[in-house]
Amino acid sequence: MKQLQELLVNEKVRKLFQGMRIGIEKESQRVTLDGCLAETPHPAALGSRDYHPYIQTDFSETQVEMITPVFETIDDTMKFLSALHEVVLRSMPEKEMFWPLSMPPVLPEQEKDIIIARLSDQGDVNYRRYLAKVYGKRKQMVSGIHYNFEFSPEFLANLFEIQTEFSTIKEMKTNIYLQVSRKYLRYRWLITYLFGAAPYAEAGYFDATHARPEEPVRSIRNSEYGYTNRDDVVVSYASIRDYIQDIENLVESGKLIEAKEFYSPIRLRGGSHFEDVETNGVNYVELRNIDLHPFVPYGTDKDTLQFIHLFIMAMLWQPESDVPADELLAQGTEINNRVALEHPLTKTKWYDEGMMLLDGMLEMAEAIGLPQSDVALILSAKEALEQPEKTLAGQMVLKGRNGLSNQELAICLGKKYHDKAHAKPYQLAGYRHMELSTQIFMFDVLQKGVRLEVLDETDQFLKLKHGNRIEYVKNANMTSLDSYIVPLIMENKTVTKKILAKAGFRVPKGSEFSSLDEAVAAYDYFREDAIVVKPKSTNYGIGITIFKDGATKEDYIEALGIAFSEDDSVLVEEFMPGTEYRFFVLDGETKAIMKRIPANVKGDGERTIAELVAEKNTDPLRGTHHRSPLEQIQLGDIEQLMLKEQGYTVDSVPAWDEIVYLRENSNVSTGGDSINITEGIHASYKTIAEQAVTALGAKICGIDLIIPDAGVPSDTGSNTYGIIEANFNPAMHMHIYPFAGESRRLTTDVLKTLYPELY
Amino acid sequence: MKQLQELLVNEKVRKLFQGMRIGIEKESQRVTLDGCLAETPHPAALGSRDYHPYIQTDFSETQVEMITPVFETIDDTMKFLSALHEVVLRSMPEKEMFWPLSMPPVLPEQEKDIIIARLSDQGDVNYRRYLAKVYGKRKQMVSGIHYNFEFSPEFLANLFEIQTEFSTIKEMKTNIYLQVSRKYLRYRWLITYLFGAAPYAEAGYFDATHARPEEPVRSIRNSEYGYTNRDDVVVSYASIRDYIQDIENLVESGKLIEAKEFYSPIRLRGGSHFEDVETNGVNYVELRNIDLHPFVPYGTDKDTLQFIHLFIMAMLWQPESDVPADELLAQGTEINNRVALEHPLTKTKWYDEGMMLLDGMLEMAEAIGLPQSDVALILSAKEALEQPEKTLAGQMVLKGRNGLSNQELAICLGKKYHDKAHAKPYQLAGYRHMELSTQIFMFDVLQKGVRLEVLDETDQFLKLKHGNRIEYVKNANMTSLDSYIVPLIMENKTVTKKILAKAGFRVPKGSEFSSLDEAVAAYDYFREDAIVVKPKSTNYGIGITIFKDGATKEDYIEALGIAFSEDDSVLVEEFMPGTEYRFFVLDGETKAIMKRIPANVKGDGERTIAELVAEKNTDPLRGTHHRSPLEQIQLGDIEQLMLKEQGYTVDSVPAWDEIVYLRENSNVSTGGDSINITEGIHASYKTIAEQAVTALGAKICGIDLIIPDAGVPSDTGSNTYGIIEANFNPAMHMHIYPFAGESRRLTTDVLKTLYPELY
Repeated sequence: MKQLQELLVNEKVRKLFQGMRIGIEKESQRVTLDGCLAETPHPAALGSRDYHPYIQTDFSETQVEMITPVFETIDDTMKFLSALHEVVLRSMPEKEMFWPLSMPPVLPEQEKDIIIARLSDQGDVNYRRYLAKVYGKRKQMVSGIHYNFEFSPEFLANLFEIQTEFSTIKEMKTNIYLQVSRKYLRYRWLITYLFGAAPYAEAGYFDATHARPEEPVRSIRNSEYGYTNRDDVVVSYASIRDYIQDIENLVESGKLIEAKEFYSPIRLRGGSHFEDVETNGVNYVELRNIDLHPFVPYGTDKDTLQFIHLFIMAMLWQPESDVPADELLAQGTEINNRVALEHPLTKTKWYDEGMMLLDGMLEMAEAIGLPQSDVALILSAKEALEQPEKTLAGQMVLKGRNGLSNQELAICLGKKYHDKAHAKPYQLAGYRHMELSTQIFMFDVLQKGVRLEVLDETDQFLKLKHGNRIEYVKNANMTSLDSYIVPLIMENKTVTKKILAKAGFRVPKGSEFSSLDEAVAAYDYFREDAIVVKPKSTNYGIGITIFKDGATKEDYIEALGIAFSEDDSVLVEEFMPGTEYRFFVLDGETKAIMKRIPANVKGDGERTIAELVAEKNTDPLRGTHHRSPLEQIQLGDIEQLMLKEQGYTVDSVPAWDEIVYLRENSNVSTGGDSINITEGIHASYKTIAEQAVTALGAKICGIDLIIPDAGVPSDTGSNTYGIIEANFNPAMHMHIYPFAGESRRLTTDVLKTLYPELY
Repeated sequence: MKQLQELLVNEKVRKLFQGMRIGIEKESQRVTLDGCLAETPHPAALGSRDYHPYIQTDFSETQVEMITPVFETIDDTMKFLSALHEVVLRSMPEKEMFWPLSMPPVLPEQEKDIIIARLSDQGDVNYRRYLAKVYGKRKQMVSGIHYNFEFSPEFLANLFEIQTEFSTIKEMKTNIYLQVSRKYLRYRWLITYLFGAAPYAEAGYFDATHARPEEPVRSIRNSEYGYTNRDDVVVSYASIRDYIQDIENLVESGKLIEAKEFYSPIRLRGGSHFEDVETNGVNYVELRNIDLHPFVPYGTDKDTLQFIHLFIMAMLWQPESDVPADELLAQGTEINNRVALEHPLTKTKWYDEGMMLLDGMLEMAEAIGLPQSDVALILSAKEALEQPEKTLAGQMVLKGRNGLSNQELAICLGKKYHDKAHAKPYQLAGYRHMELSTQIFMFDVLQKGVRLEVLDETDQFLKLKHGNRIEYVKNANMTSLDSYIVPLIMENKTVTKKILAKAGFRVPKGSEFSSLDEAVAAYDYFREDAIVVKPKSTNYGIGITIFKDGATKEDYIEALGIAFSEDDSVLVEEFMPGTEYRFFVLDGETKAIMKRIPANVKGDGERTIAELVAEKNTDPLRGTHHRSPLEQIQLGDIEQLMLKEQGYTVDSVPAWDEIVYLRENSNVSTGGDSINITEGIHASYKTIAEQAVTALGAKICGIDLIIPDAGVPSDTGSNTYGIIEANFNPAMHMHIYPFAGESRRLTTDVLKTLYPELY
């Protein structure tokens, strides 16, 4: 393509040139916490490798491969990749972790003890056996990142419009990706220089007779000692025909068993199979020469991915050389191998070319108006070119000089990432701003191998797919399982009560008012009764006043005012005394029962209330801003007032076993305790809850019962209980990570109800 | 029951004593607008009489019977009864109306021309044939009101608690209703006096040989000339055993064909069948002696029903006489007959007893604290006792004296009620405060014979039942047909677009922003494009700004400010030029297509804009406050400004056929025109709309397409259209009563989809 730079600065494409579609594959070896190759099978919790789209095993049973879907931003890609890491790490035995390096950990002495992945497809197993035979199992144990990259389709469409050289977009795309590949193959040494992170091999990688580098290098993996085809496997990138023909010839001649055995640092891709390149033309490229970044938890990070992105852009931006393609490729391979084998702390021999490349990137940044953050990345790379100790391999070698062996470094980093993944099991890396229930649900989805797309993060809106069946899920509990009318029924307390009463359930008697006057006029009916005044449709206890022994007219009017400030309609209902229980009913079955207790501490006769609160708040389940299943207890005005009414201050020392309450309300959001009830409640109440939810027609429902004595048997028609409310968006995380009682993993129950075939 | 009054003022029952459960049956003859008995069959539109719970025929094919469900207030009862009237009247040929009197219109000379109701149940037909034979068809043609009354169950329960006489509530209830019945039978003459409204018989009621009153009377229907059993049919109310035994004996001896032939002014009821009295005890009473009130549109009104309610209460309140029951009954029958046959303008002979009764009612009102409105009703009755011209019969006779024959009066009133029912066909009497679509839907439900309960009027929440199948419906379009996730998808414009785009549909490209800064930073991407800036989740065009030729940065920021004031997230989308069409898709099929046009008038070269607006506003479809399918065009600031921009004032005279717009926006709520498109739009767009709705998984959806040229064929993947929005609560009334184009009765389509077996 002539004058490509001129086209790329055209305003129709300039911004879009920065667009992308990207997907990452990342391999890692499972090891024990002391760095030995794991002997356990691939975790059973991770669904089935027959269909898992994101979590697979590569060569060996211990080599987990994590595969992200295709995203349009690096940000989204990293979020998904980090989530996958947490899912895998938490699904592994807790005494296992990921080996954070591309070069494998110490390998078993006997090659037979390296276990080929136990896949159910015999073809997949046979392929691995072939590799073991041809390359040896040890070579196959290296891990890395595959970076699948596509230019934005809009960019390509607009570029096609303004160019004149190609008559079909397919031709143009193929040309573009071929250009990028040729230049990448020539200049990839810079990636090896900057991101090479494989200076050492642990015992067992090289067999006794094998030649090996004497000194640390930038990347064994990217050198001739890495995982490469034999020298007679040469494929031309001069044209797409040459590329396809060469690979086909190699397969026909038996030099490759199939096309995927061609381990080029960059592959041309037309789709998921090699043949697609022929049919579709080139649609994306797959970069395969990126080592694991040991100093970040997920093997790579945004900056690395973005620098590589800029580098790919530069490979298009930079004018093509006149040197024939095959010669360029041979040059590139030679230079890369030499750079890979340079000592990490030495300046590279190709320093000048590197500077030229990076300056070219800066020019490109200027010409197309890249953001300052991109410029900063390029400048960092220049710095690393100046100061080899800033490269990854450089840093690793420096750590070694500081007395940490390669193995020790790997164990130390691996443990750090392991601990991080286990620290807050109720959260999911990448999605920590979403609601907890949704994070936990996404964990289950990813674990089980259901395809996941976050359609709207702020709205907790997910798309799931398994087989051909799509399910949309919001807030982890709003699904296609319920019919639309059901939440509308529950949203309307009057309608809910009418339906429950009609079905024979005990609900609080009461009246609905749509004006203050009307409600005040009815005072005589309620004056001596125990009543609750509440807004008709709001939830979470807002605007509710309770009069346990009747109300004065003034208090009654004030309560009405509070309720009317929340809603146009207000209910005045009979107050039912007793304990409130939340029954979580799913598909006709009570899955959990919870009692909530107001914020409290239990005295030990020694510590002050403030100290007891501080200690209770150290529970990792307690956090702030609803990012944890429980909230920390505050010592604000409300709590201090509550203490004062009991004759306490924060400095009082409660007696042994004395429980001091700091709040009147039992909400978890104000430091209350959530307690999953497993015993002590008669089974008949479960039946009532289940039948009531059935009467409402709901599949997923949190229904609140007031029960004066939960030990006493009950039945539908009796006065032993009262149904207070039904919720169509019941919180799940508090049942999964309760303050006390057994955990009930409701998110799994929801997933199971959506996709029973998975269980 | 001793000291009943003492019990009734006890505060545990005093308020509850006013409670009730009430159901009304009301018969009316169908006649032509000139007062002749209709010759048409029962309207086919009114579903099937095999199951219709509310609309039946009584004796003759022309005698419609309307039956309300049981309600707890007279208000609710009257609302339902008035709705039934409008449904029946609008289902009849437009040249038919109801005869508003209890006494039938002029009857055919030949008795054979009175057609017995053509029911499918042979037993029902045979029963009517038997009645015709025994009583003659003419007597069977009178109509009236049946008033089914039950004391509030809570009242009875509390009364049972504080009394000591009865050991079961069943015994107590039976005793109470027997007391009420005995006293009612004795004093019912007062009801005949006040509400008797049958002074004249039209030709054909009495056959030539029949004795008849010479002068107008209070109520032929309630006299010996009315529709009564033979004299040898006597049933005792002394005890429930006597009552049951007497009726059973009458049936056994052949004097009655079955229990329901016993035409007492008050029947004891245990349930829907006579036998239920024996099984259940008495649960309610059925008053049968109430004439149609000719001066109100629905044969009775709230005041009449409430006075009768107070009278029933008085029949419990008033101490029992020592006279034996059967003697009292004979007395009552005798007095009632004589009062019924008094001249309507004479003072009644039982004036003193009447005053005593009414004063007793006033005492009761005082003792139990009845509201002032009840006292006023009793005082009115006293007035009518003083001034017979205030009774219904009295008023009818006075109309006669003013030169209006009984037939003329009936025709005049009947027509008035007929016209009222047809005036606003899009509204439903009793429920005019509900949303129009819901009113129209309720009409369809009542017409077709589906059981209807308004669960929440302000929330447009209905319960339907047919056979054993219950359906809940909100806003007439939110049903169990849709799954819960579907409206959540549509509520989220980003999610909707993602799903539609994924399925291959053309949606506006764009970006979502959750902060102003972020959105401002993206200005460069949009500066030269035609864009729409809109809040993410609100509807109805609020907060939207359109830039057809790019925006200045200032304008762009201002538009963002407006949008962010409506929502936390804002979309900046490609503006698609073209006409916007609303496709209403139900169950995969496009049921209506609508175009909306901003408020406008068409010039005639003579009248001013103000005059043209005034004329356009006379359309009965145009109203205010969304109680009509179209809104009146205003001439406020916005309209005047819009005129000014076109160089007009309200006094300008537009040329012949010139269309002058008064608004920029096309909303019907600001006077816009709704036009159902029946032609001129290529069928392919329907397919696109249907497929898009299917992609969203919706059963009921209003989907908005922008189409530049609706005559040009299209397909899913093309750029000939754009999908703007999908609505899960699409308005239906504007399609049913459009400004122009054919009506599409979407409410019927919804009902049909819910209950296909009805169609």
